[in-house]
Amino acid sequence: MTLPSPLCASLGDPAGVGPELLVAAWAERAPAGLGPFFVVGSAKVLRGAAARRGLDVPVRTIGSPDEAAAHFAQALPVLDIGEADYRPGSPDEAGAALALRSLETATGLVRGGAAAALVTAPVAKAQLSRIGFTYPGQTEFLAQACGITDRNAVMMLAGPSLRVVPVTVHVALAEVPSLLTAELIRSRASIAAAALARDFGIERPRLAVAGLNPHAGEDGRFGDEEARIIAPAVEALRGEGIDAFGPLPADGMFHAEARRGYDLAVCMYHDQALIPLKALDFDNGVNVTLGLPIIRTSPDHGTAFGIAGKGQARPGATIAALRMAAECAAFRARA
Amino acid sequence: MTLPSPLCASLGDPAGVGPELLVAAWAERAPAGLGPFFVVGSAKVLRGAAARRGLDVPVRTIGSPDEAAAHFAQALPVLDIGEADYRPGSPDEAGAALALRSLETATGLVRGGAAAALVTAPVAKAQLSRIGFTYPGQTEFLAQACGITDRNAVMMLAGPSLRVVPVTVHVALAEVPSLLTAELIRSRASIAAAALARDFGIERPRLAVAGLNPHAGEDGRFGDEEARIIAPAVEALRGEGIDAFGPLPADGMFHAEARRGYDLAVCMYHDQALIPLKALDFDNGVNVTLGLPIIRTSPDHGTAFGIAGKGQARPGATIAALRMAAECAAFRARA
Repeated sequence: MTLPSPLCASLGDPAGVGPELLVAAWAERAPAGLGPFFVVGSAKVLRGAAARRGLDVPVRTIGSPDEAAAHFAQALPVLDIGEADYRPGSPDEAGAALALRSLETATGLVRGGAAAALVTAPVAKAQLSRIGFTYPGQTEFLAQACGITDRNAVMMLAGPSLRVVPVTVHVALAEVPSLLTAELIRSRASIAAAALARDFGIERPRLAVAGLNPHAGEDGRFGDEEARIIAPAVEALRGEGIDAFGPLPADGMFHAEARRGYDLAVCMYHDQALIPLKALDFDNGVNVTLGLPIIRTSPDHGTAFGIAGKGQARPGATIAALRMAAECAAFRARA
Repeated sequence: MTLPSPLCASLGDPAGVGPELLVAAWAERAPAGLGPFFVVGSAKVLRGAAARRGLDVPVRTIGSPDEAAAHFAQALPVLDIGEADYRPGSPDEAGAALALRSLETATGLVRGGAAAALVTAPVAKAQLSRIGFTYPGQTEFLAQACGITDRNAVMMLAGPSLRVVPVTVHVALAEVPSLLTAELIRSRASIAAAALARDFGIERPRLAVAGLNPHAGEDGRFGDEEARIIAPAVEALRGEGIDAFGPLPADGMFHAEARRGYDLAVCMYHDQALIPLKALDFDNGVNVTLGLPIIRTSPDHGTAFGIAGKGQARPGATIAALRMAAECAAFRARA
């Protein structure tokens, strides 16, 4: 009998909330229904995080990923790659270097098949850039590490009752209209549709595509992007056999009844996607990177240095990210 | 003993859902806790709307507003100003003309003090513009009728757990950055703060001001409007003694815990305000015009010609608009 491949979690910045949330997730593994995962990082950091949170979490160093599943019921397995002096809430370069080594090692293990999926804890971009990390974020790093272009790595945010893909992400709102093209929308949505079929068990996903302007432009009264860019993208998606529809007035897309009509909302900009996701459920959002050869999820929050080490950070999103990674791995294994 | 002044409701487009929702609201007056209101319009239209909805609602023609309160328990009081042939779902010019006469008469009655507040049912701008109505909507008409500039009539949307003011409204998203000025934000927010104190009993309202860009620009990484325009507006508001704070990342403003920290979200554009409002509660949103000498509310939906006359339209927003108008009138009377 072979044990199921475990999930692999990167440590995140040791001064942030990542380590304590991994520890907290392990402590809740039974009620949360979590299968085996291990952390690539530092046993010392994790033990410190558990102690600060007042959690009795045994941390068990493993020599290789295939030992993780056997120990998981009794202890949080850790592949120890070194340690760093750090203080919760006070990020520094040594901590960023440990976070980066953890991310690199974890990615390699998942790429190589030693773990079923990657769950990344939050890192601090400002610290990472000081030690020579040139990517805008972990997603772009992962795309590169997996040998695909950034453009083909698509960010999806998933909450308990809503999945969204923002077509444009971390750009000024003023730049959004000029960045949108029918091809960009088509490409992001098409990658997302394929991933929903492969990794989420949604055979023929329904994609609701948002308009850009109020009331989706109201027949061109406020902006023409709907007719000029978004409608052609929807047509192109339908031409690929994808069940896409829109452009829809964005303000009418996110109430409970509307959400039942689609599996994914394709949004034109960051806040159009993130406002409803976080308004409906702030604590349990998962960031999933679609289009990678590996499965990668992440809690949809940052390092939260302001509350790190204080026992206040809530583990819901980390638990949701671990659970979703396991589910996606199961769907992909079945395919 | 004087009876309390009734509320005055305009009929809305007779081919839309307005009349049937006024009838449905009256039918639910007891469980909904609604005080007296009367409709300015057509007894025939209201009787037809009740019959189509299968509601046994007696409609009672009154000769003047001061008769409304005495009849309200037994019948829906109507100040009859004529009728129009109409078909639900098929708007025409005769119906638009009736809707406009109703709006004009109702506004005059409230302006003159014969009714405590105005609740407007939805009209169709396309139909109205064919009969010479030159305003973008009812709000601009009301501003003009009350002798103030459009700029001083501020639209607030209020749901059960969220109030929002969009600083810009029905404009293309591409135009939003160039339309935003510190003075525009300050002026809208200042009018809103005064109205919350006077008409909503919130002595010192807390105003959360949204950023424009993702993560409120992340210290200028994505756009500079936060530093250049929004922060100075917040400073100016604080200089007026208003408890305003921000700019805040918009995607973190609308979950339950965040909402408890403010009384009004000041938003930079239509969908930033309307997406969370409608995601959280689609059916009970009220549109309130602040800054007018009169109290005016309206259900936050349109004529919904597609479902008019079919008994499907839900009266929650109309009931909420009537209730809010009564509450505002009570606060203003006390002041």
